[in-house]
Amino acid sequence: MIIAVVGSGVASDELCALAEEVGREVARQGAVLVTGGREGVMAAASRGAHDEGGITVGILPGTDARDANPWVEIPIATGMGQARNVVVVTSANAVIAVGGEYGTLSEIAHALKIGKPVIGLHTWELAKGFTQQDEGVVLATSPQEAVNLAVALAQE
Amino acid sequence: MIIAVVGSGVASDELCALAEEVGREVARQGAVLVTGGREGVMAAASRGAHDEGGITVGILPGTDARDANPWVEIPIATGMGQARNVVVVTSANAVIAVGGEYGTLSEIAHALKIGKPVIGLHTWELAKGFTQQDEGVVLATSPQEAVNLAVALAQE
Amino acid sequence: MIIAVVGSGVASDELCALAEEVGREVARQGAVLVTGGREGVMAAASRGAHDEGGITVGILPGTDARDANPWVEIPIATGMGQARNVVVVTSANAVIAVGGEYGTLSEIAHALKIGKPVIGLHTWELAKGFTQQDEGVVLATSPQEAVNLAVALAQE
Amino acid sequence: MIIAVVGSGVASDELCALAEEVGREVARQGAVLVTGGREGVMAAASRGAHDEGGITVGILPGTDARDANPWVEIPIATGMGQARNVVVVTSANAVIAVGGEYGTLSEIAHALKIGKPVIGLHTWELAKGFTQQDEGVVLATSPQEAVNLAVALAQE
Repeated sequence: MIIAVVGSGVASDELCALAEEVGREVARQGAVLVTGGREGVMAAASRGAHDEGGITVGILPGTDARDANPWVEIPIATGMGQARNVVVVTSANAVIAVGGEYGTLSEIAHALKIGKPVIGLHTWELAKGFTQQDEGVVLATSPQEAVNLAVALAQE
Repeated sequence: MIIAVVGSGVASDELCALAEEVGREVARQGAVLVTGGREGVMAAASRGAHDEGGITVGILPGTDARDANPWVEIPIATGMGQARNVVVVTSANAVIAVGGEYGTLSEIAHALKIGKPVIGLHTWELAKGFTQQDEGVVLATSPQEAVNLAVALAQE
Repeated sequence: MIIAVVGSGVASDELCALAEEVGREVARQGAVLVTGGREGVMAAASRGAHDEGGITVGILPGTDARDANPWVEIPIATGMGQARNVVVVTSANAVIAVGGEYGTLSEIAHALKIGKPVIGLHTWELAKGFTQQDEGVVLATSPQEAVNLAVALAQE
Repeated sequence: MIIAVVGSGVASDELCALAEEVGREVARQGAVLVTGGREGVMAAASRGAHDEGGITVGILPGTDARDANPWVEIPIATGMGQARNVVVVTSANAVIAVGGEYGTLSEIAHALKIGKPVIGLHTWELAKGFTQQDEGVVLATSPQEAVNLAVALAQE
C-alpha cells in the first residue's frame, strides 16, 4: 500500500510535528510513504517514516535527485514542475493532507477528482454541498486517526 | 494575451450561458482563449469566443485531437491526463473559473500557486485568511466584469 | 491540420534556411505550425510560417511565455521541461524533423511510437530493419517535398 | 544509486534473459532498479532484481498501479502516458537499454539530452559523428559489463 502525505514546503513546528508522527504511523503500518520530496511537511513526514524503517519515496519537481530531503530513500526526479503533484496523488492509494497552501490544495483536488480518499489534518475544509461528486476531505483529529482512516479507505 | 477559462465538463445551462458570454468577451478584447478543450463550460466558452472570431485553443487530456469540442480551432493533445490542467493555467496570463468541481479546483490551486490572477464566477470560495500567499480568487458578478478583471490583472 | 516542425535549438544557417522554408510551406498549405517554441530550427520555422500569415504555436518547456521566439503567436508554457516534447508530437497530425540532436531524436521516437508520420530533412536515419513496427522516418529532399509528404500522410 | 533499465514491452526470450540478468546485477550492486513497470524487458529486469532482494520501482504510463508487473515493489502510477518515459530516465543516475523499439529510443534520446550515461545491450546504435554533444550510447557485451559501466559512469 502507498500513502501520500501532502503539505507545504514551509510549515510551522506544530504542523511538522503532526506530519512526522503521520510518517511514523505510515511506516508502522507497513505502507510505503510518498511525498513531494522537498522541505516542510514533506521532510517531516519522510523523517518520521524513515526513522521507523519505512520506505520513503519523493516525487520531485526538478531534474536533480539531490533536491530531495535527507530522509527520502528513493528520489524520483520528474523535471515536470508542478505537474509532479498529479503523480504524487495518482501513485497513492490514499492521501493525507497536513496543513497546506495552494500546492497542497491542488493535490487534494486532483486526488478527489480521480476518486482517491483524502484525509485532512488542519487542512483546507472544502465547502460541503458544493459538489455532489463525493464526500470530499475526511477530517481527522490526530496523526494516528488520519493514518487509520487512510489505510481503511484505501482498502475499500 | 491568453485567457484561460476553466470549469466542469458537465455544467448547468446557466453556467454554460455564463461561460459562453465570457468566451465572447475574451474574443472581443482580442485575447486568445485557452480551455481544457472538452464539454460543458469548456465547450460553451469556446463556442462564444469562436462565434466572435476569436482564436480558441483546447489543451486536451487524451492523445486524440478529435476529442476536442467543435469550437476549438487549435487542439493540443497532450496525452498527459489530469496533468494537462497544469498546462492550461501555466500557459495563461489570467484564469477565469466558471462554476467547477474538483478538476476546476485543481486548476484554481495551480494558478494561485504560480501567481496567476484567478477570477471566479459562481465558483469555489476559498476560505479567506487561510493563507498569507495572496488574495486568492477575485470574485466577479458578470461575464464582462470577469473578463475586464482578467485583462487588467494580466497586465499588472 | 497541425504540422509539427522539430529540430535543434542551435542550428546552422543552412538548416535554419531549410526550416524557414518548411514553415512558409506549412502556412501556404493552410496548416497550423507547432514547434517547441525556442531558437534555432524552431525559430526559423516559426518565422517562415508567420511571414506567410500562418498560425504559429510554441509548446515551451518552461513556465514563462516570454521564452518563446518572436514569431510564436500562441505560446503554450507547459512548465514540464523535456516532457513538452511529447506534447509537441502528440498534438500534430504529422511531424517534420529538420536536422536535430538528441532532443529531436526523442521527438522522432515518440512520434513513431504513437504512429504519427515523421518526415526527415537532413535528420537521423534510423537503421532500417531494426524494428518491424513501421517504416520509420520518411526522407525528403526539399522543404516543399517534406510538407507535401506530411500533408499527404496526415490525411491517410 | 538508481539504475533505469529500459526496453520494449514485447521482447524475445533472449532479450528477456539478458534483462533479467541485468536486474539481478543491479540488485547485487545495491542499486535501486527503475523501469517503466510493464511487460517484456521491464518485467524481466524487475523479476531479476526482485529475486535478488533489490528494490524495484515501476513508473507507469496509466493511472492504475495494478498495471505493474508482479515484480514491481513500488508502482508509481503517473497517468501521463508516454511522458512517463521522461520520468524514468530523469530519475536515474544511469540508464541501461536492452533491445528496444521506438519507446526505448525515446528514453535513450531523453537520457542523452540531459546528460545521463546510457549503456546499450543489443540496442539502437546511433550513428557516430552525427552529433558533437557527447559519445552517445556506450555498448556493452554482457549484463554484468552493462551494470559495471552504469555504476562507474553514474559515479563520475
